[in-house]
Amino acid sequence: MIGPSIEDIRGAAEVIKDAVLHTPCEYGQTLSQLAGTDLWVKFENQQFTASFKERGALNKLAWLQSQGSVPGVITVSAGNHAQGVAYHAHRLGIDATIVMPRHTPLNKVQMTSALGAQVVLEGDDLEAAKLVADRLAEKNGLIPIHPYDDAQVIAGQGTVALEMLADVPELDCLVIPIGGGGLIAGMAIAAKAVNPTIQLIGVEAELYPSMVNALAGLPPTRGGLTVAEGIAVKKMGRLTTEIVRALVDDIVTVGEPAIERAVIRYLEIEKTVAEGAGAAALAAIFAHPDAFKGKKVGVVLSGGNIDSRLLASIILRVLYRDGRILRLEIDLSDVPGALADVARIMGDADANIIEVAHQRIFSQLSAKGTEIEVVAEIRDGTHGDRVVTILRDAGYAVRLPDHG
Amino acid sequence: MIGPSIEDIRGAAEVIKDAVLHTPCEYGQTLSQLAGTDLWVKFENQQFTASFKERGALNKLAWLQSQGSVPGVITVSAGNHAQGVAYHAHRLGIDATIVMPRHTPLNKVQMTSALGAQVVLEGDDLEAAKLVADRLAEKNGLIPIHPYDDAQVIAGQGTVALEMLADVPELDCLVIPIGGGGLIAGMAIAAKAVNPTIQLIGVEAELYPSMVNALAGLPPTRGGLTVAEGIAVKKMGRLTTEIVRALVDDIVTVGEPAIERAVIRYLEIEKTVAEGAGAAALAAIFAHPDAFKGKKVGVVLSGGNIDSRLLASIILRVLYRDGRILRLEIDLSDVPGALADVARIMGDADANIIEVAHQRIFSQLSAKGTEIEVVAEIRDGTHGDRVVTILRDAGYAVRLPDHG
Repeated sequence: MIGPSIEDIRGAAEVIKDAVLHTPCEYGQTLSQLAGTDLWVKFENQQFTASFKERGALNKLAWLQSQGSVPGVITVSAGNHAQGVAYHAHRLGIDATIVMPRHTPLNKVQMTSALGAQVVLEGDDLEAAKLVADRLAEKNGLIPIHPYDDAQVIAGQGTVALEMLADVPELDCLVIPIGGGGLIAGMAIAAKAVNPTIQLIGVEAELYPSMVNALAGLPPTRGGLTVAEGIAVKKMGRLTTEIVRALVDDIVTVGEPAIERAVIRYLEIEKTVAEGAGAAALAAIFAHPDAFKGKKVGVVLSGGNIDSRLLASIILRVLYRDGRILRLEIDLSDVPGALADVARIMGDADANIIEVAHQRIFSQLSAKGTEIEVVAEIRDGTHGDRVVTILRDAGYAVRLPDHG
Repeated sequence: MIGPSIEDIRGAAEVIKDAVLHTPCEYGQTLSQLAGTDLWVKFENQQFTASFKERGALNKLAWLQSQGSVPGVITVSAGNHAQGVAYHAHRLGIDATIVMPRHTPLNKVQMTSALGAQVVLEGDDLEAAKLVADRLAEKNGLIPIHPYDDAQVIAGQGTVALEMLADVPELDCLVIPIGGGGLIAGMAIAAKAVNPTIQLIGVEAELYPSMVNALAGLPPTRGGLTVAEGIAVKKMGRLTTEIVRALVDDIVTVGEPAIERAVIRYLEIEKTVAEGAGAAALAAIFAHPDAFKGKKVGVVLSGGNIDSRLLASIILRVLYRDGRILRLEIDLSDVPGALADVARIMGDADANIIEVAHQRIFSQLSAKGTEIEVVAEIRDGTHGDRVVTILRDAGYAVRLPDHG
């Protein structure tokens, strides 16, 4: 078997135990009810840099130090791996250089340099940044740390499974997001060693089914914009692909709306912040309920680094899709009092108006009429239907724009 | 001394220990750095109904059962107390009736009835709902549970301090939100019994300094709209006021912007969801830094029940106030290509445009001109200033509307 052994992973657990949290793995009472399964969540978003990536980074850095003096390390990442390497390299007194593509959001650059790393912004995408990193590594004698295709990194990530099975031995299924495959590869080696009958399910974003394709010998997928940036990886690792092929039982994919809804479930029910990739495993439970029914499922919430503005936008999109926000177009005669009448009717029907816009230019009515767009909070779809009916009964022409 | 004794609070800890979480009290590394103090957070938002209120509710319900058979209980609350009573009454097989004012947001009604309580929607405000509850209690022989002015409820809330001082004995200051005063009264009795030199600071919303006023013999304040609904209480308890007068060292107030920012600090740094009242204690640390410098401070994150849409709106308001969102009004000649030019200039300057609105009717320009409002993401205020300068250098008239 290639890759790290269970002993390597137990060794990693010893190495990281004083500087990485043994995060809680807790039963989700409400989530279990909603999902029709018994569900435990592993809160890796509680790590200092808010993701599991610290485990592999620290294990690798400590291993390098155990081999002799380390002149400095270099890695390519615009995400959680960058923060994990930066934080632990700084703690250990190792110089870290992180190469990020030029258009990386500035808050990610700032977070990483605040942790003590030198950030180099070069290249138009990750591939180009990789070439820059190779050049810098050679020129400055720096040791590259691959974010996932590395035995020590994989061993570090595997400690997540050791902790979950120590805390909740009755788990019979683990659901794990797949980016480059480092987390699932390490967890698979650890989990199958502890419990050979445990079921392992990987989760990819529909837009990036790169591991599914790699296993089938197909080329990487085209991708696109996803809220699950952390698992939007095109090129799988050589090591990780072979470990997944050998040990993982199944891989499922989840679409963007399912991921967005899972982010909101974590926020509203568990009062915790999950990034898109961090919520993908929970999304899979709800997207494929039959696959998990009646099982004792451990779900990895792998990270919580989500841009706040993106989170705000996901909240509003999910509320709208859930029918908790109603958007109506209503024809009004362009006279004083018309809006007041609509507002009164909707208020009496318990719809809370949060936005009103007048459409004059685009209205298909005569110039004496106007069309308003009203956005209101409602309880649910049934309540929304009732509000529409009441308005129509009062004589208003009401249209519902397509749900977005 | 009036109110419960330390023995009552230790008894409450025994009573609730199997059905209420001993929540974590954790050192906040980044929060401590930002605040210039050593800061531990007590995560009461991790309770099943996401607030500390379960402690007092359960202690009271169990006490009632210890006194003989309980015909049913009734309480007035549209918030966390309602959920705490509903959940534990249902667990113990006690019928619970919760009276809420008629216009209570429907999600709160649904949450509470989903927990097994009968919800009665009557009265225009809490005072009116209280009269309804008194009438129902008499008519149906139900036992009222006061949300804070009750010795068993106060004893239950006091267990928060026992846990904090057991887990982090070195704390020398506790910062506690004040609604009706039940939490701070119970915590004060427990904390001063365990450590007589500990400093206790209460926190009220600026719009509701009701405990400050009650101690000074002044009438309740007028109030107003606050994001910290959970501590927007006008009438203090008789018991709670006397306990606070005897044991609490100081009370500070915090304004709405400070509370909103504290909600976002919890979200972005601790990856956890705090409601406004739940974030008030953290807000006080940042609003009054000199009062806490150099201390070992325990902050109670008392609850996480915040409406998601309100949370989204707080995120956007704080980003805007922090200068991470830029709003500009720009005069354009009303010809094709004008917007493209502005968009190109801003893109080159790394400002990410997220919204564009055309103002035609209200513009002060001639009818041949138009004014656009552009909203863009930027790194910080300095970056924003640079974007404005570049646009002006390119010949555009740019105005910054007042910050809201």
